Amino acid sequence: MTSTHSTRVDVVVIGAGLAGLTAARELVAAGRSVAVLEARDRVGGRLLNHDLGDGQVTEIGGQFVGPTQDHILALAKEVGVATYEAAVPCERVYVRDGKARRFAGHTPPDLLALPDMGIALARIGRAAGKVPPAAPWRAPNARDLDGMTYETWLRKAEVTGDAVDLINIFLNSAYGGEARDASALFSLWYVSTFGDEIHPGTMERGTGTSGGAQDSRFVGGSQLVATRLAEELDGRVHLSAPVRRISQDADGVTVVSDAGDWRADRVIVAVPPLLASRIVWDPLLPPQQDQLFQRLPFGTLMKCVAVYDTPFWRAEGLSGMGLLRGGSPIREMFDNSPPDGGPGVLMGFLGGKEWRKWAHRPAGERRGAVLRSFAQVVGERAYDTVDYVEQDWTAEQWTRGGPTSVAAPGVLTEYGEWLGRAFGRVHWAGSEFSPYWNGFMDGAVRSGRHTATELLHQS
Amino acid sequence: MTSTHSTRVDVVVIGAGLAGLTAARELVAAGRSVAVLEARDRVGGRLLNHDLGDGQVTEIGGQFVGPTQDHILALAKEVGVATYEAAVPCERVYVRDGKARRFAGHTPPDLLALPDMGIALARIGRAAGKVPPAAPWRAPNARDLDGMTYETWLRKAEVTGDAVDLINIFLNSAYGGEARDASALFSLWYVSTFGDEIHPGTMERGTGTSGGAQDSRFVGGSQLVATRLAEELDGRVHLSAPVRRISQDADGVTVVSDAGDWRADRVIVAVPPLLASRIVWDPLLPPQQDQLFQRLPFGTLMKCVAVYDTPFWRAEGLSGMGLLRGGSPIREMFDNSPPDGGPGVLMGFLGGKEWRKWAHRPAGERRGAVLRSFAQVVGERAYDTVDYVEQDWTAEQWTRGGPTSVAAPGVLTEYGEWLGRAFGRVHWAGSEFSPYWNGFMDGAVRSGRHTATELLHQS
Repeated sequence: MTSTHSTRVDVVVIGAGLAGLTAARELVAAGRSVAVLEARDRVGGRLLNHDLGDGQVTEIGGQFVGPTQDHILALAKEVGVATYEAAVPCERVYVRDGKARRFAGHTPPDLLALPDMGIALARIGRAAGKVPPAAPWRAPNARDLDGMTYETWLRKAEVTGDAVDLINIFLNSAYGGEARDASALFSLWYVSTFGDEIHPGTMERGTGTSGGAQDSRFVGGSQLVATRLAEELDGRVHLSAPVRRISQDADGVTVVSDAGDWRADRVIVAVPPLLASRIVWDPLLPPQQDQLFQRLPFGTLMKCVAVYDTPFWRAEGLSGMGLLRGGSPIREMFDNSPPDGGPGVLMGFLGGKEWRKWAHRPAGERRGAVLRSFAQVVGERAYDTVDYVEQDWTAEQWTRGGPTSVAAPGVLTEYGEWLGRAFGRVHWAGSEFSPYWNGFMDGAVRSGRHTATELLHQS
Repeated sequence: MTSTHSTRVDVVVIGAGLAGLTAARELVAAGRSVAVLEARDRVGGRLLNHDLGDGQVTEIGGQFVGPTQDHILALAKEVGVATYEAAVPCERVYVRDGKARRFAGHTPPDLLALPDMGIALARIGRAAGKVPPAAPWRAPNARDLDGMTYETWLRKAEVTGDAVDLINIFLNSAYGGEARDASALFSLWYVSTFGDEIHPGTMERGTGTSGGAQDSRFVGGSQLVATRLAEELDGRVHLSAPVRRISQDADGVTVVSDAGDWRADRVIVAVPPLLASRIVWDPLLPPQQDQLFQRLPFGTLMKCVAVYDTPFWRAEGLSGMGLLRGGSPIREMFDNSPPDGGPGVLMGFLGGKEWRKWAHRPAGERRGAVLRSFAQVVGERAYDTVDYVEQDWTAEQWTRGGPTSVAAPGVLTEYGEWLGRAFGRVHWAGSEFSPYWNGFMDGAVRSGRHTATELLHQS
């Protein structure tokens, strides 16, 4: 806890994810001296490339981008990272209770579930349209919506079990959970954030591949954007520097890390709210903000990646994309191969309830179950892996869950106004603080910019 | 983080609340060497006496005990702390929308709300009776009940708005929140814990004064039980020793605190789950346990205490007890005078939604509003205070909320089995871990005993 020396800068940024790095970039551009302190030995936060050898990578963290995510898209362009279309133009597979059916386009071939899903999307769209992305607690019926789970709301809206199950497949990856884990207000708000200032958020954009949030990927992997930003910051990013204590006084802020102490006029905390609340604060966080952070747990998400010599499924007219219902650990999967079609990569989300069932089982048993899911979508060759990798975000010390923070009933209406409210000389950034693409890369970049601007206007 | 010396004991107990002190007592009785590390400069955790002068005290933390709470009652007797009847045998006051009515007995004079309340209690009783206190996730309809808030369940059970409001008055103090903050399963389980192995839990016992959970108080204040336990432990309790890091290896556990390091065979962590999750763990907490602890936020509760020369209301036939509905910050209040009727003390709970409304307002404004509530119950002399004290448990660094931890939907069924599961050489204790009187003093004592026994059987 003691130290003999502290390094003086204008602003300390805590966390070298996209939000922190973006904020630091803006501050440096405005002439401020900045130190970015990162707990891990790498940058990128919830973005993580996995090396496939021969200069090829795939991602085992956040990876998709799409239209209306202009902030991350423009930033990537600025640092020289290109995008490519994520979806392979081949057929997808819909598995229900073990029976696989191929289909073209976005719409799974389920005559029973589809009309229900259409009605559900219309009702969700109408309700989400009334929730203001920047202040969901001001929605006309905010208090009612925040008194129930999203599962309850869906049932009240007469969304059928079939449609709820399909929605849960999406929430499995989007929340690392299910409709019951979040309040109705949070969930409708979340839909309202799938857009920008001009394009109102829609469920279709959030769940979509071409034209939606899963439209594109980054050449070189999403983490490359963070790596390039860190390179630009040229020595200002300090790795393996977990912050243990933040002390504010009348003259400035002292930040105590395992890699030394820093002294700054202002601090941007750009780590998830949960982790921010685990830092020692002096003075303490305001009770309302601490209470809010107590109520923003992470979902549970693991990415399971199988590597093959080639994307063999494409030759059979398959895109590698699958939706699986009825007991398989993987409920949503994608072709995650690099752009030039070298090794073939399949990636499945093991999230929410399935994570809770599978995460503590023996690794071999889980791998077998995951490859069985993959085999239902691309056939028996799914077992012929060159490599198999799992990334369990709940086991990562400096994330402890994934993909984002989810609010249960009662949280947004009672504490939402404290989200992002500066605490003395301490400002907040991170995807969880963004009114658009909250929980996505674009939200992180937006938030980093917003907070840098807020800070520059105040000092 | 570094230290040159660590003190060696058989067991380190972290937290000198009732659970930790009880566990330490049992371990010492079994011949183990023990060190109790307490972050505060006092023992008692969520129990806190307030000195009224002249050897008199009142409580600004947990204070009530009643029948079936045999563990705390027996323990208090053993350490020489007597009980006395909490309720003054005079009339109570029911305030609705500013109109006050006196009444005798337990039942507020509200012809509209009462029949509803009777039906509500019957329905709650029937549903709670099906929830096993030691494993609520095994209730026959656990998954359904855990998919909705308690508010949703009450509405589905056709409990009227009037009855929900009365139930929320109780939850205001019991949860520091409302029915929407908790899952239906958690809430029905909570009712099932208002009893013991022989007497099934009932809402009536949880909310009752004479014969219920608010039956009695301790002479000398509830914290005296903890103080006596600490005296018995004779030098084994180390104050101002917040624990920052817990490291386990094959041979034992190292506990790093601000007051030095300890080395032990085993550790009992007897602080609330939220605070346990803010310690640095090496190795990390298992993901499932960390996820559970991410999902056990504290409620919000402040105790407001006004002191008078005498309990003047008694001469007017008033018990000082009041139930207030319709916008007053205090919704439930009690005569909190010491047993021999020296100074008069009124105590009101400012919890849940009202805390969220009032906690950040100027102290003088809040004091005025609280005394206005008191005046509605005991008359204008309520303003003639000798002293006025507030204890905001959310602002306490080593609690950060009150009175207990509350689980939102999806938590008990998905993570409940991890509650209290030992992590290597680390065992858990605290009121949150008890199947009876969870969140109460009795639950803390039960849990401390249970965990000490578990540990003694394993080492």
